Amino acid sequence: MTITPAGQKWLAVAEDLAEQLRIDAAERDRANASPVRELELLRESGLLTLGLVEADSWSTQMAVTRIIGAADANVGHLLGYHYLQLWRSELFDNADAMGRLRASTAENQWFWAGVSNPLDAALELTPVESGFVLNGRKTFATGAAVADRIVVSATRTDTGEKLTFVLDARAEGITYRDDWDNIGQRLTASGGVVFDHVAVAAHEVLGTQTEDNPRLSLAALGFQLVLAQLYVAIAEGALAEAAEYTRQRTRPWFTSGVESATEDPHILVSYGEMVASVEAAGLLADKAATALKVAADHGAGLTAEQRAATAVTISSAKVVSTKAANETTTRIFEQTGARATTSAYGFDRFWRNARTLTLHDPVVYKAREVGEYFLTGKRPPFTGYS
Amino acid sequence: MTITPAGQKWLAVAEDLAEQLRIDAAERDRANASPVRELELLRESGLLTLGLVEADSWSTQMAVTRIIGAADANVGHLLGYHYLQLWRSELFDNADAMGRLRASTAENQWFWAGVSNPLDAALELTPVESGFVLNGRKTFATGAAVADRIVVSATRTDTGEKLTFVLDARAEGITYRDDWDNIGQRLTASGGVVFDHVAVAAHEVLGTQTEDNPRLSLAALGFQLVLAQLYVAIAEGALAEAAEYTRQRTRPWFTSGVESATEDPHILVSYGEMVASVEAAGLLADKAATALKVAADHGAGLTAEQRAATAVTISSAKVVSTKAANETTTRIFEQTGARATTSAYGFDRFWRNARTLTLHDPVVYKAREVGEYFLTGKRPPFTGYS
Amino acid sequence: MTITPAGQKWLAVAEDLAEQLRIDAAERDRANASPVRELELLRESGLLTLGLVEADSWSTQMAVTRIIGAADANVGHLLGYHYLQLWRSELFDNADAMGRLRASTAENQWFWAGVSNPLDAALELTPVESGFVLNGRKTFATGAAVADRIVVSATRTDTGEKLTFVLDARAEGITYRDDWDNIGQRLTASGGVVFDHVAVAAHEVLGTQTEDNPRLSLAALGFQLVLAQLYVAIAEGALAEAAEYTRQRTRPWFTSGVESATEDPHILVSYGEMVASVEAAGLLADKAATALKVAADHGAGLTAEQRAATAVTISSAKVVSTKAANETTTRIFEQTGARATTSAYGFDRFWRNARTLTLHDPVVYKAREVGEYFLTGKRPPFTGYS
Amino acid sequence: MTITPAGQKWLAVAEDLAEQLRIDAAERDRANASPVRELELLRESGLLTLGLVEADSWSTQMAVTRIIGAADANVGHLLGYHYLQLWRSELFDNADAMGRLRASTAENQWFWAGVSNPLDAALELTPVESGFVLNGRKTFATGAAVADRIVVSATRTDTGEKLTFVLDARAEGITYRDDWDNIGQRLTASGGVVFDHVAVAAHEVLGTQTEDNPRLSLAALGFQLVLAQLYVAIAEGALAEAAEYTRQRTRPWFTSGVESATEDPHILVSYGEMVASVEAAGLLADKAATALKVAADHGAGLTAEQRAATAVTISSAKVVSTKAANETTTRIFEQTGARATTSAYGFDRFWRNARTLTLHDPVVYKAREVGEYFLTGKRPPFTGYS
Repeated sequence: MTITPAGQKWLAVAEDLAEQLRIDAAERDRANASPVRELELLRESGLLTLGLVEADSWSTQMAVTRIIGAADANVGHLLGYHYLQLWRSELFDNADAMGRLRASTAENQWFWAGVSNPLDAALELTPVESGFVLNGRKTFATGAAVADRIVVSATRTDTGEKLTFVLDARAEGITYRDDWDNIGQRLTASGGVVFDHVAVAAHEVLGTQTEDNPRLSLAALGFQLVLAQLYVAIAEGALAEAAEYTRQRTRPWFTSGVESATEDPHILVSYGEMVASVEAAGLLADKAATALKVAADHGAGLTAEQRAATAVTISSAKVVSTKAANETTTRIFEQTGARATTSAYGFDRFWRNARTLTLHDPVVYKAREVGEYFLTGKRPPFTGYS
Repeated sequence: MTITPAGQKWLAVAEDLAEQLRIDAAERDRANASPVRELELLRESGLLTLGLVEADSWSTQMAVTRIIGAADANVGHLLGYHYLQLWRSELFDNADAMGRLRASTAENQWFWAGVSNPLDAALELTPVESGFVLNGRKTFATGAAVADRIVVSATRTDTGEKLTFVLDARAEGITYRDDWDNIGQRLTASGGVVFDHVAVAAHEVLGTQTEDNPRLSLAALGFQLVLAQLYVAIAEGALAEAAEYTRQRTRPWFTSGVESATEDPHILVSYGEMVASVEAAGLLADKAATALKVAADHGAGLTAEQRAATAVTISSAKVVSTKAANETTTRIFEQTGARATTSAYGFDRFWRNARTLTLHDPVVYKAREVGEYFLTGKRPPFTGYS
Repeated sequence: MTITPAGQKWLAVAEDLAEQLRIDAAERDRANASPVRELELLRESGLLTLGLVEADSWSTQMAVTRIIGAADANVGHLLGYHYLQLWRSELFDNADAMGRLRASTAENQWFWAGVSNPLDAALELTPVESGFVLNGRKTFATGAAVADRIVVSATRTDTGEKLTFVLDARAEGITYRDDWDNIGQRLTASGGVVFDHVAVAAHEVLGTQTEDNPRLSLAALGFQLVLAQLYVAIAEGALAEAAEYTRQRTRPWFTSGVESATEDPHILVSYGEMVASVEAAGLLADKAATALKVAADHGAGLTAEQRAATAVTISSAKVVSTKAANETTTRIFEQTGARATTSAYGFDRFWRNARTLTLHDPVVYKAREVGEYFLTGKRPPFTGYS
Repeated sequence: MTITPAGQKWLAVAEDLAEQLRIDAAERDRANASPVRELELLRESGLLTLGLVEADSWSTQMAVTRIIGAADANVGHLLGYHYLQLWRSELFDNADAMGRLRASTAENQWFWAGVSNPLDAALELTPVESGFVLNGRKTFATGAAVADRIVVSATRTDTGEKLTFVLDARAEGITYRDDWDNIGQRLTASGGVVFDHVAVAAHEVLGTQTEDNPRLSLAALGFQLVLAQLYVAIAEGALAEAAEYTRQRTRPWFTSGVESATEDPHILVSYGEMVASVEAAGLLADKAATALKVAADHGAGLTAEQRAATAVTISSAKVVSTKAANETTTRIFEQTGARATTSAYGFDRFWRNARTLTLHDPVVYKAREVGEYFLTGKRPPFTGYS
């Protein structure tokens, strides 16, 4: 992926924030609080506005997500999804609504999240004079509880159409259940949301989701891609922190015959193998990002076959990055040694984050998609996950 | 390994206790308290006295360690090391001292632990009229803080001899630093110990450790073996709990075409691969246990070559079980699905326990021993880890 | 597995033959001829008669199969299947027929093979006055072309019953198609057989195969077990030959800093990892062998559940040994170095033999059986492969 | 890597030749002859002249090497090394000599090879009036026996300088030992070469190799890169041929419950995993290719640090592609099934080629380089392999 000079500046901003996040990442993971302070940091950095004005910011957004995600996978997750919600809202080609939303987001440094677990029952949208009334509940809405705006999809009770709209996350009738307490990605506020007679104005509707529209179907692929990027980020973060520990603290094994852990042949080989496989995973994630950009740029002309090839590249990236993340976050400990299991370092958070996030949807079905397309040319179906 | 009928009864006792431990294992892991209640349960079960009276209890002790370790790796660790301390104390052939100690242990349900991190500086033993005075500090003394008796080794300041003796864990001058706060094996009380002018009576001395005595050198191998057994236990426990979850809660993936997660072909294959590899690892750990028993039974006649072959078998077991434990505890989640990452289930404890315990000493150096012996016949040196 | 003193003598015989086979194993693999000379060697060694007189020879047969199979997987295959054909013929409890056959086999040093590919259409058995007439064709009948006696199953055209019988392999009407030319197991004479009006006398019939008889169904498991033993044997043979090469010929890498390849840390670790995993696989294969013996010893009283547990243990062994064989036979080259790819050494035969033999039936379905039994208790169906 | 429109035409040429090579690749591998006919095909295609006239042909050369290498790893190897010899000859910045050589190569469709095994003793170059006389012997000179021009390096007996020059491969005094008979890459004519008083004219000398020149040291990296590209190519070729077989011939397993092997869930997943990992490996090889191009384009200004970063990226690519090649070429058989081991298909050639070529130099030392650079920043030394 090529980053523009303007993008390079954003990367530097991201590196600065990453540096700050790394300092107390372990501590914040243990505290297991709502990511309020983390969002403040994102706002202060300006990163929430990246892409609102500039063209060609997709590569930069992806790179920034990786940098932040390596330092703190929670914050990377929130930020990557924020970019995604804005990006996928554009797919409806509702220039009017998006113009307003982009401007307000830039002005107010709004943080966006989504409410859309495809495995839950659909939310219900009842038409009323002023627009609609929204009812229902959804689980696992990453970031929604701390968001300013949420992107929501729901089914019209009269026509059965599925509309997507953007709400003020603090609107009356919305309750956040605060029921996310998981072993990883603890600071992502990924709990459930209840909508109880929430008013939805007509102008808040971005458009109608149709099941067979290749372009709109890219939204699901976007989430898969950001997940792949985050898996790579977690592996990169784990490697960086482990290496720092090995350099600073690991003692050479007493029968190794070397003076320093950084000379131990097995430690060197193991780092080399991890670095190489994570690098390969990262390149595939980047290729997938480029592919999705190209697909989206096709606009309404995107064909089902182009969409399929894009989906399969993203699935490949997910397969490879899932493996890299889970393996790397376990293996780093062999290079740090036993004392690095001290809770204060919190190095298990990389594995816990990787393990939790890589279960988003079963990766074996991604591999199956890739294999089926390769073997038979069969295209992945349009679903919330493919 | 063959278990005697008397042993079978102990296995039943162990299964009962395991059942009880499983109920709140996750909760106790989170509480991260000293394993006081766990020791009470061990005492109530009578398992601490297994082997004090019966002959041929080695296989039973190993099997019991696996059963308890699968339910709660912390308690399995404490119990396995308890058996080990008693066993390795016998290697000094001090029938007099051991007769008394065995009797008192049986009578009082004493729990034994050891203080012996080989990587620390040696403790110092200054001769005085009544025996010795002990000074120094050691790290990572699993179980010592909650033990009744501790096995300690120290170097005489006058002769340089290394003596091993058994102390009342509550004796004056002994302080437990309570500094074990790690990501796994949280309830093993594996903190440091300080000895400040602790009196050691002559009759408490079991014997002198000489560096070149094959029989005494078996002690180090015993710990390696128990670790291998615990790695297998953790993998077995992870598989059992994951399977129960899959049966009870996992939902079939929506594109799987099956009605139940227990019919998903990928879930079935994955369990099959894990079960098979853990079974193989368990057999190798059992072979290693038998080998160590045979070696110890050789008594003073144990040759250096017999000792080497035993050490290498144990190292092989450690290599295979390390891999099985780390892989299984990561992989189970793919069969349980995303919701199993809920903190309440605490399924990450299997990985955290495996990851922590498998770092006891670097397994790559075990593989190196095995390879060197296979390739060149070179025997592993006598160290605290081989 | 415990080997009797009588068995120990057979192991020595096997070691002698193995030594002889190893000398020109690569050359014979290249020549790709019918294993006539190999069978002569088996006859001369007396190994074909092992088990015809002695009780308790099962463990010895398995151990001998491993020893010979490590030296030459082709000959191990022929011998293991020979033992298996005799063993599985006993399952019909036709003492009369088997008494005669055992005696003649011992007297004439007969070599047995079987004709039974379950994936082919059944052979047809038409009743005639003197017994039956046999017609049909089968593929992949290992050893049949060089056998003295072949065990054949066919379906009666009148009753539909499936009979099993033992024929003179040279009987009129039997043609061997000599169509086995594969990348591995080249000297196993595993071609097709055509039966054209072959006379089958009534007294040659061992019994009737019924689909739901647990005891008779053990035959299929026997083949699975012998395959697992051969996979382990191939891995063991590969390791032994590679180690010999490393010791004799491998040069240390010029940046390794060591004087000899046998001191290279990476070579040592790699051998250690392979030795350990092959050892574990071997123990599981031995456990499976013992389980099958126990199951067969139950006689008619064998329950479906006992049969299922046996089948699953054998499948576990196959899963683990398949992996060990394929991985080891690829990995050894990293320890021998580039020059060991010289054709004269023929070290690729280990991989070619392993790769060919481990495809006998798809191992993923074995893993699936193991997983399903573990997860749901569902017993493997009675088939030609399970 | 971006391919120019001119390059796209070359890719089409390469695809045509690949199609032709695939037809009898197995047969030619079995015949194990000198690659004379293969070179004719290369000449007829015009591919030997790719890059002699056009600028920016590096990416195209790499892509062409992959396409041809996937169809026939032998021919890919010859072609890739041909490009490499021309490329690395340019590093001496001897515009005069190279101008002539490029022109003649284009005119005569010369095929280039090299004679340079760094592990052998150096060739000796004795100054005489007309230039030099060359003596000595080298092993493993891929393609030299069928080449038109060979690039040779030798040490001056007077000054100790190491000169590199280009000889007519048929010059008097050069003998090709025809001693390459290995399990893989059989058609690469990789035998030894003897130089017996071979005349070397002064104008044939490209320049002097100095040990500490970053730019000239790129030659060694070029070979490493081409090897990585070939490993990827072999994996790609194996996947393509296996998939074709699965589609055309593989029968579904009888307990699979599906009608066609292309619906078997395990086959689909396995292809998916292989495709994804090979794709990632290919991207890393391409990144390495770009990095080497950038490094070479720095010209004399190339810094030691830039050179190190390039070397490490190439080593990473080698680590990842080695794994992908060895794993894929073994694993494909699980998707084709047992009958695909028939010798006529020759599917084992992928593994034999991969296994042979990935032993070029021990990959574990490449991983070590990558790890050391990551951990400590230490730069790989300038050697014939790094």
